[in-house]
Amino acid sequence: MGGLTVMRALKARLPSESFVYLGDTARLPYGTKSADTVTRYAVQASAALMKHDIKLLVVACNTASAAALLTLAETLAPLPVVGVIEPGAQAAVAAAPDGPIAVIATEGTVKGGAYVRAIQALSPQMPVVQQACPLFVGLAEEGLRDGPIPELVAHRYLDPLLATVPHPRGLVLGCTHFPVLKQTIAKVAGPDVVLIDSAETTAVAVEKILREQLLLENGSTGSSLFLATDAPGRFAHLGEIFLGEPIDPGSVTLVDL
Amino acid sequence: MGGLTVMRALKARLPSESFVYLGDTARLPYGTKSADTVTRYAVQASAALMKHDIKLLVVACNTASAAALLTLAETLAPLPVVGVIEPGAQAAVAAAPDGPIAVIATEGTVKGGAYVRAIQALSPQMPVVQQACPLFVGLAEEGLRDGPIPELVAHRYLDPLLATVPHPRGLVLGCTHFPVLKQTIAKVAGPDVVLIDSAETTAVAVEKILREQLLLENGSTGSSLFLATDAPGRFAHLGEIFLGEPIDPGSVTLVDL
Repeated sequence: MGGLTVMRALKARLPSESFVYLGDTARLPYGTKSADTVTRYAVQASAALMKHDIKLLVVACNTASAAALLTLAETLAPLPVVGVIEPGAQAAVAAAPDGPIAVIATEGTVKGGAYVRAIQALSPQMPVVQQACPLFVGLAEEGLRDGPIPELVAHRYLDPLLATVPHPRGLVLGCTHFPVLKQTIAKVAGPDVVLIDSAETTAVAVEKILREQLLLENGSTGSSLFLATDAPGRFAHLGEIFLGEPIDPGSVTLVDL
Repeated sequence: MGGLTVMRALKARLPSESFVYLGDTARLPYGTKSADTVTRYAVQASAALMKHDIKLLVVACNTASAAALLTLAETLAPLPVVGVIEPGAQAAVAAAPDGPIAVIATEGTVKGGAYVRAIQALSPQMPVVQQACPLFVGLAEEGLRDGPIPELVAHRYLDPLLATVPHPRGLVLGCTHFPVLKQTIAKVAGPDVVLIDSAETTAVAVEKILREQLLLENGSTGSSLFLATDAPGRFAHLGEIFLGEPIDPGSVTLVDL
């Protein structure tokens, strides 16, 4: 579901492009699953998308980007494959060059350490602290964005992170569900901490590749097609929270991976 | 994961029996998935358990019991198959014979209406009100049993249910995750509401069938074997919250469905 926050940024930046979005609703969430299982699911999902003659694949999930990006890039070459971790790491280092940088993500992303590696590949001495925030996923899917419950949950996860010395200056929203809770997270993190949402920078990265490879659409009006592996009606209904606009249930097709 | 609360009750009541438990950790949670998908997954899981020469199958998940019990019973006949909905409905009608009865469960169980049907099959005029409580699953899996966060979440879900007139007298914990939050739910529901946990009555139903079919073990010391479809180490670690005793990671085998 969270990948729709990335699609939202892509649609805003690239309105002439057409999108095919696959939500693996039969097996979500990926965030608590092992890297092997997530990789297997991501390869199956990408095979279903390849049937739609895509020109570029965005892995719009931090957990899948962390676990499966190299496998997907190798499997699908020469198709360009863009994950959300690398653009997020670049944005974090740009926004908080002196650090420290805090990363909040799913259990799987934190455990794999992909953000730590990606950030320190750009800035080797950068201190990085991490925290898994599993309840944020449920809050986002319930559309519970603000008020006492999300604030208390945000304090539970962020207070220990923010207590690290020196004080973190950048906070990476390292799960595509988390932008739904951005205002609450910002309120709890306080004005001294810059929030980094990789959706925007992923859209910039995608535009750059399309331009370089002469694949950029111009002038036309793009279309959106949605595939879901379970309960397309629920996908359309819930998806609005993440995409920021209604999804026509008729535009969602059930697929079996 | 929640099925371990049912296994806990079964082990307490039937200490001489041996158990094979399968946790479909690669595809959990079932509670937000469609009945068709849950049925397909449950049939695959039962096939893996049949390889262990089981003498009875407990469907230790309300969502799977609601969606797949008939299919499983037909597929596996003459093997006895016991779900958790029917015992829960019996316990609810026994505990609150004048009603009304409130049911809290997953989205899938509420949508399918299995508890309403099972309760009204026993007591046709019984008023039943229902509420899906998706965040309870995440709270239970994080081991966050009490304090302000679970209490606020419980108020969010229970206050509208408890405001129905006349006041509900029985509250069915219609998801195997929810017994982990029992004390908080009881506190918010207040002393006039009886909580019904179907794990206990499921164990009674299992004992009755084993006795009738002359399958009951006596005197021996039972064993426990665990199968998980993903991340066996995480299963063992998290499982302790639900089983109420440590799970030896060495007793958990990874299986592929």
